[in-house]
Formats: sequence, structure tokens, C-alpha cells
Amino acid sequence: MIRRIGPSRYSPTRSRIVTHQDVITTVAVSPDKSPSLYEQSRAALSVLDQHLAEAGTEKSKLLMVMIYLADVTAKAEFNRAWDEWVDRANLPLRACVGVALEGNDLVELVATAAV
Amino acid sequence: MIRRIGPSRYSPTRSRIVTHQDVITTVAVSPDKSPSLYEQSRAALSVLDQHLAEAGTEKSKLLMVMIYLADVTAKAEFNRAWDEWVDRANLPLRACVGVALEGNDLVELVATAAV
Amino acid sequence: MIRRIGPSRYSPTRSRIVTHQDVITTVAVSPDKSPSLYEQSRAALSVLDQHLAEAGTEKSKLLMVMIYLADVTAKAEFNRAWDEWVDRANLPLRACVGVALEGNDLVELVATAAV
Repeated sequence: MIRRIGPSRYSPTRSRIVTHQDVITTVAVSPDKSPSLYEQSRAALSVLDQHLAEAGTEKSKLLMVMIYLADVTAKAEFNRAWDEWVDRANLPLRACVGVALEGNDLVELVATAAV
Repeated sequence: MIRRIGPSRYSPTRSRIVTHQDVITTVAVSPDKSPSLYEQSRAALSVLDQHLAEAGTEKSKLLMVMIYLADVTAKAEFNRAWDEWVDRANLPLRACVGVALEGNDLVELVATAAV
Repeated sequence: MIRRIGPSRYSPTRSRIVTHQDVITTVAVSPDKSPSLYEQSRAALSVLDQHLAEAGTEKSKLLMVMIYLADVTAKAEFNRAWDEWVDRANLPLRACVGVALEGNDLVELVATAAV
């Protein structure tokens, strides 16, 4: 069974969270377009927490976080926010690449978690 | 059980569609390398429809569509094709980033769907 | 049940491999930062083999490989390594995009496989 939570805050034609076979997938960006990657990273991880809670799960059940950065050379700033946030007893897999993001987004996260 | 449909139209050394545990994953680009992102988006979404049908499913069962654009500032053109195409009763999750694509591809889609 | 193998060789705050519902997800880069994409691709695919083995599976059970290249115009060099490596009886799905990678990485792989 597919469970769709939404729509996205950013568009009426996409979901905010999709759950299937006890796996949720969701996307998070920072609501505030701060020029600081560290601040945007903290805010995007906080949105991720909210989405996980909405779907009845939490960061200890994260599987994979795909991290898209507007400037991959600033990755240490994301890592700082990550290290403060991550559940060290339940480390997710992650990968991080530099891409072009929309507008003033500096980071976008695509995450999967067990429910 | 893994079900592999293929090979890809673009190479003999990769599949076109892979199904596992009632989830299909597939990739779609536009067969025509039109200079219009809107036209390539329509065509890529049509290829996605074909792949879903080949695997015995359809867009109402889409979970996630990862959208790679050669020019993320032209995203509105993709969104126009998406909005005309998407099943509004069954909204997929999506994320969209700007990357370098091969040749004259303007858009590439990686999608998962329930079977 | 989630099984986490790790941490990553590159950081104490992420896993190297995550398994859930008989699907493993892992990330691989070349340990050697050779200037040759072909050499880095061979090495990254070899790391992928090691990760699959650690999780009790192998390349014949690969589902999807997402390929991030620092220079997508050099994709033929990756394809050469792929064609020498891939299990032609069990072709994975793949997609390949050009992104900014960290340091001297020329290729990064994110792969899923059945266990």
C-alpha cells in the first residue's frame, strides 16, 4: 500500500512524503534561504525531522540521505550541522554531490527511512 | 526475486527496468533531442509511461521521480510538462537538481513505482 | 530490521553499508585519486564489490547504480570499466550525471542490491 502525505509546501502537484512497504522517502530544503550553508543545513535537517515524525518514524531509522549542495567545496559546513544532528548509534548511509539548485537553496536532502 | 527488463535502448550492458520486491526502478530520457526542455520533458515522461506499462504498472503507482535538468533555471518548463502529465489523485514525491547531462539531453528521470 | 555496517572509511558519522528488507545500499569511490577516470572507475567498482561481499551479496544481485562523474563528457572511460566489470547475465539499471565531486574524486557510485 502506498501512503502519500502532502502536497509539498512548494507545489500542489507533488507529495511531501511517500511511504511504501515500510519505507518512507522524503525531500527537505531550508525554509529560510540564509546565505550560510551551516544554517540552511541545520534548517533542512530540522525539516527532515518533521517529515519523519509526520510519517511516524524518526532519525534513528534513517537508511540513506542523498545530499545535494550548491557548492560542494563548502561541504565541511554541512558536515558540521550533520555531526551535531545525526544519531551516532544509528548512522545512515550518505552521499554528497555538488549540483545546481534552484534560487537561493544551498542544500537539498533526499532521504529514505524505515517506518 | 529480481526481474530485469532490457537491455536499455542506449547500451547492451545495462537494464531498462529492474523490479524487486514489488518496486520497479527505471530511467527515462527524451528520444528526440529537441532544444525545448518542455518538449524533451513531455517525451521523457512518455517514455516513463511506457516503461511503467512494460513492468505492469502505471503512473498512479509512482513513488519518487528524481529529475536531473541540464539547466535548473529552466525548471518551469519541466514543471509545465509535469503538471499536464501527473496523476493529481496520486502525487509522487520528486526532487529536481541541475547537473551536466550527456550530449543534447536536457532532462533525465530516475523513477521508482510500486507494481 | 535495519543492519548498519560501518562506519564509512571517510567519516565516523555515517555508515558504509545499510541493509533493510533484503536491500543493501552503499556508496563507493576510488581509494586512489588517479587522474584517470578509467582507473578510478575500476577501483570504485572494486570497492563496490567489497561492500557487496561484506553485506553477503554480489554484483549479480545489483539493482541500480547511480553514477556521478566529475566530467560527464569522459563517460566513455567509465563505460569501458563498467563493461569489463558488469555481470552480463544480470544487468543492473544505471543512470549517469555530471556533478561537482569533492577533492580529486572523478567518480562516485551509489548502488542498491538485493541480499
